[in-house]
Amino acid sequence: MDHAPLNESTGGLLPCSGDGPDAALARAVSPASIEAAGRVLAGVAHRTPVVTSRTLDGLVGARVFLKCEQFQRVGAFKFRGAYAAMATLDGAARGRGVLTYSSGNHAQAVACAAGLLGVRAVIVMPADAPRIKLDATRGYLAGAPAGSRIVTYDRGREVREAVGGAIARAEGLTIVPPYDDPAVIAGQGTAAWELFGEVGELDWLFVPCGGGGLLSGSAVAARGRSPGCRVVGVEPCAGDDAARSFASGRLCTVDNPQTIADGARTPCLGRHTFALVMAHVSELVTVGDGAIASALRLVSERLKLVIEPTAALGVAGLIELARQRPEDVTGGRVGVILTGGNVDLDQLGSILGMAGCD
Amino acid sequence: MDHAPLNESTGGLLPCSGDGPDAALARAVSPASIEAAGRVLAGVAHRTPVVTSRTLDGLVGARVFLKCEQFQRVGAFKFRGAYAAMATLDGAARGRGVLTYSSGNHAQAVACAAGLLGVRAVIVMPADAPRIKLDATRGYLAGAPAGSRIVTYDRGREVREAVGGAIARAEGLTIVPPYDDPAVIAGQGTAAWELFGEVGELDWLFVPCGGGGLLSGSAVAARGRSPGCRVVGVEPCAGDDAARSFASGRLCTVDNPQTIADGARTPCLGRHTFALVMAHVSELVTVGDGAIASALRLVSERLKLVIEPTAALGVAGLIELARQRPEDVTGGRVGVILTGGNVDLDQLGSILGMAGCD
Repeated sequence: MDHAPLNESTGGLLPCSGDGPDAALARAVSPASIEAAGRVLAGVAHRTPVVTSRTLDGLVGARVFLKCEQFQRVGAFKFRGAYAAMATLDGAARGRGVLTYSSGNHAQAVACAAGLLGVRAVIVMPADAPRIKLDATRGYLAGAPAGSRIVTYDRGREVREAVGGAIARAEGLTIVPPYDDPAVIAGQGTAAWELFGEVGELDWLFVPCGGGGLLSGSAVAARGRSPGCRVVGVEPCAGDDAARSFASGRLCTVDNPQTIADGARTPCLGRHTFALVMAHVSELVTVGDGAIASALRLVSERLKLVIEPTAALGVAGLIELARQRPEDVTGGRVGVILTGGNVDLDQLGSILGMAGCD
Repeated sequence: MDHAPLNESTGGLLPCSGDGPDAALARAVSPASIEAAGRVLAGVAHRTPVVTSRTLDGLVGARVFLKCEQFQRVGAFKFRGAYAAMATLDGAARGRGVLTYSSGNHAQAVACAAGLLGVRAVIVMPADAPRIKLDATRGYLAGAPAGSRIVTYDRGREVREAVGGAIARAEGLTIVPPYDDPAVIAGQGTAAWELFGEVGELDWLFVPCGGGGLLSGSAVAARGRSPGCRVVGVEPCAGDDAARSFASGRLCTVDNPQTIADGARTPCLGRHTFALVMAHVSELVTVGDGAIASALRLVSERLKLVIEPTAALGVAGLIELARQRPEDVTGGRVGVILTGGNVDLDQLGSILGMAGCD
């Protein structure tokens, strides 16, 4: 792992001088809490399909099972964590409502859960967020209680946490964070929990890593259902904060990484997710945007599945590991989580044009 | 239905002066022959998934079940017919081998089946076929017996039937036609057969129509498993030969129709498929390329499924019928066959840009 500072074109690297992991936080999510979240989600979240591909099996020399969260409600695994967290709030907190800040799939997930649960939701989004994401979030909020709304802020002049925090305090709203929350992490862990339930124990599980909520939940799920499984987090090279944190044992930050995997542009792990990753994850792998685009092309052209670039991270990481250490992968049983499918198809062609250009 | 000749920009229309349907040919494919083809395909063809979508249900006011043949081997339903026909040849014919002419999914289907069955196959393709299709077909043939090969011909100077016929006679090869063959039609019918088996009886079934093999097989399957189901063939407006044939009772031809639904550019139904369509299909619906592109966008963006433009015909036809005659569709149970997913993703963006441009 190269710890030299990145240049400006690939992201702003701050030194790994953050805190070490707080082991007590790692105990906040257990296999039992994931199982409980699964009961909350039963009949509400989709039990997404698991697909296999002779082509991919042949390419990596293993038997691969892909958990298809692009078919989840709102088109991404994020529904699991948002709904699980909101459904388990106490009655008073549910009555007051929730707030979140996100420009991505988590915003839609909270908005959708708000409609289903009858919980008021305020979503803080940048004013320059893509119109399609604002519209989708607004569409879900149409089914939520009165007072639910999108609040936009100016990314250049305001900090979203400050904007959101002020509103939450004024209106008594509970913040539903996108990843650094035990209830959210337990919800995200239900995807891997279902995967193990359907295909049995695995040798490897590859999981995209942004803020680490899905990775943490998946790793805890593996501890419960497939203790020998090595859980691997996969990050884009340009945003390798989690890999640096994992290697150094100190929380590292990469600001504004430039990568096509927009769901992995989070600057750092959270306090809970850092502790859980350190406790339960086997390794972190980084892949370039060209490798991500190649994996995206494979999944689109050969598996006929629409996924967003971030969702290709797991496949790209598996292919990279199989290339570097075939002896570890050959003949194994491998799980991969495809995280979501919310991609602008008009841009898909140009992204696919990058395939193999690392 | 407007029977005025089309202008040159939309295809060359010959008068509907062909023969009427030969009712005897309609008896060559029965529900029992489809059931038998299903036994031949068991464990070889994929039992493809059926997916549903709240968005699509809401749009058309009905409960819609989509049979996903893009996940079939070779990425299209064509594998069913090719394999079923080749697996049921007598021993001597299998020993001599088969020949087909196709530049599309049927070529890959015959090549794939040849490898699986150990039957020699000669595939006649135009020399200017897309490189990706030549390569894919060649890839499948690599697993087939010695003597298997692609023979290219000059589309401007040669007729494929003449080129193929001469080779077949010289080498004793059995021709496996892309659609006008009872064994092929029975194989294609297994997709609808499985759909009825999984979801029960339906009120409507929408099926893309090129040469009519899938449509014929689907209609016979409906007679066996859901006798009250109205089976609708869907064609591009520019290549509406089957709709004209159905309306006039005479086999009509539209040469070289210009449409994004490249799998429906066949000039006319075959003799078997015409007879079966007349006997068992309820109606033919035509849709413009803009409507096909809109349906393709819906399936890609909301259902997260990669399909080729021809595969969007069924969804486009359903949306069109629900718009014109909502009273017929509302509250019903509707099947749609998504026929395949072999699309050049670099072109998908430009096709999607046509959405709604009729």
